[in-house]
Amino acid sequence: MDMNERQFIDLLKRRAAPRPGRKVLPGLRQGIGDDCAVLAHTRHKDLLVTTDLFLEGIHFRRSWQQPDSLGHKALARGLSDIAAMGGTPRFVFLSLAVPRNFGKTGKTGKKWLDDFLAGFFRLAARSKVVLAGGDTGASAAGLLADVVVVGDVPRGTAVLRSGAQPGDGIWVSGTLGTAAVGLAALEREKKLRTLEPAFQAFCCPEPRLRIGSYLRSRKLASAMLDLSDGLSIDLARLAEASGVGAEIDAALLPRLPEIPLHNALHGGEDFELLFTVPPDRTHKLPRSLGGVPLTRIGRITSGQKLMLIQDNRKQPLPILGFQHF
Amino acid sequence: MDMNERQFIDLLKRRAAPRPGRKVLPGLRQGIGDDCAVLAHTRHKDLLVTTDLFLEGIHFRRSWQQPDSLGHKALARGLSDIAAMGGTPRFVFLSLAVPRNFGKTGKTGKKWLDDFLAGFFRLAARSKVVLAGGDTGASAAGLLADVVVVGDVPRGTAVLRSGAQPGDGIWVSGTLGTAAVGLAALEREKKLRTLEPAFQAFCCPEPRLRIGSYLRSRKLASAMLDLSDGLSIDLARLAEASGVGAEIDAALLPRLPEIPLHNALHGGEDFELLFTVPPDRTHKLPRSLGGVPLTRIGRITSGQKLMLIQDNRKQPLPILGFQHF
Repeated sequence: MDMNERQFIDLLKRRAAPRPGRKVLPGLRQGIGDDCAVLAHTRHKDLLVTTDLFLEGIHFRRSWQQPDSLGHKALARGLSDIAAMGGTPRFVFLSLAVPRNFGKTGKTGKKWLDDFLAGFFRLAARSKVVLAGGDTGASAAGLLADVVVVGDVPRGTAVLRSGAQPGDGIWVSGTLGTAAVGLAALEREKKLRTLEPAFQAFCCPEPRLRIGSYLRSRKLASAMLDLSDGLSIDLARLAEASGVGAEIDAALLPRLPEIPLHNALHGGEDFELLFTVPPDRTHKLPRSLGGVPLTRIGRITSGQKLMLIQDNRKQPLPILGFQHF
Repeated sequence: MDMNERQFIDLLKRRAAPRPGRKVLPGLRQGIGDDCAVLAHTRHKDLLVTTDLFLEGIHFRRSWQQPDSLGHKALARGLSDIAAMGGTPRFVFLSLAVPRNFGKTGKTGKKWLDDFLAGFFRLAARSKVVLAGGDTGASAAGLLADVVVVGDVPRGTAVLRSGAQPGDGIWVSGTLGTAAVGLAALEREKKLRTLEPAFQAFCCPEPRLRIGSYLRSRKLASAMLDLSDGLSIDLARLAEASGVGAEIDAALLPRLPEIPLHNALHGGEDFELLFTVPPDRTHKLPRSLGGVPLTRIGRITSGQKLMLIQDNRKQPLPILGFQHF
């Protein structure tokens, strides 16, 4: 395509913008540009809605992982968006299209689909999410899914990307770069061999619903998003939405011993939470939640620059995360 | 695929069903099996959610119609689902994936996409629907979209498929089979030549929002759905959901002079409303609404049989509508 994702979204925003003089419909608290849309709901709750494409050959390969882990991941990505707002997921809509020849090739057909659904609904049951609808059809090429998750959050409390202030600490859950190393190994070796942490992180990310909800309910996070495309690009999105700069310290990034710094900085698909904490709330933050570590990796600055501290030098942070086009 | 759509949905329902002893989460008034899911919302409103895949090579071809009419149709299909519940659309989520080579072939690229969005947002503005979010990405093959529409309806008043009673009249809006003739001509001639009614019906269906809302607010419709796959199969769905039979009269089917009976009975993509009217409400029903005729085509019967009256003979109605696999 002759434009990148950013340009496409700009095109979309321009076309979508109400004409001058038309008032925006009431009820939309947060539209395009966050992990979820936030809609006014009851007097006590706001509604969260997120929709994620999951396309064979783009987001996954059938040869790389078991169908039940693919079903898990299809749902986990949407739940992670709800977690990033501090919300509770309630309903899911699954739209699924399968190639016409699906039953006529090797590891596919009804058994494959049943295993995919088993993984999807195992995570749904564990997350107390109910299937409310969807769509089905044939696809011209490859399996494709669109997963819509509807959740809620106490009114006015959804944690947006735009609330970070200079002086806030920058924190992440879990470890960084693990999934990217798993993906790289799969691209090299073409299939899932073991359940090493990197494969597990890539194939079966765990949505951080409990952590997101904890941070929101105790007013610990001033801004939050989930790390789907890589720390550098996702941090840039948070900083831009908040109108601030940021400084992260390479030495602080939580990573497993075998994970290179490059992957921790720029690797996508970790689905950990990136959040900012006001200085006067830091003492309330636990070191871990449900066995998942919470780690301070830097601080929000005034201005717009994104900087990386490495080997006692401060340099501009390169933005290298995943581009969707 | 080695199963049909019905078998796939049965597989999905089985996997999705809460385990015995687990209670269904509150808040879901109507799940899988209607045009929209109905979720409890405020004290005064229920929420409607529908999601529709729109896939190149399956639901449309780029060579057949102008990009702005494709954008229109991508949204019209979702709005039609809201109309079929008698609801008012509020928000739309557009997930769009474009092939990586999109800018490198003939009638594609940024201009094509901008025209697609122009058609989409022209209908959105006319329908007072605001874009609240979505997703973007590359696709492995072909353009693909998933459109989610969120609407609402006064609490407890959504018109379901399941409310038809023996003795109710069976009615349709507009004319039947027109879009199917347009599709057949496109398949034969490979491109859109003129704006004849059949082409227009296929390329730019008009969601019957005003009619759906009128029927709902005046309690005229006991059951309703939109005709996306063809009268025979969609009537079978309404009858099954309501636990009733039906009898339609070939001579009563509203069709343009050039439209064969076969297309009116089984042709998909008309996006007209099919609804049932209790006998004591018939006198309240106008003959047309906003220039669109409303026509009685038969009646609901007890039992489960679907019958067709033709040439003074009553015979079983063949179910030949569009199968998604």
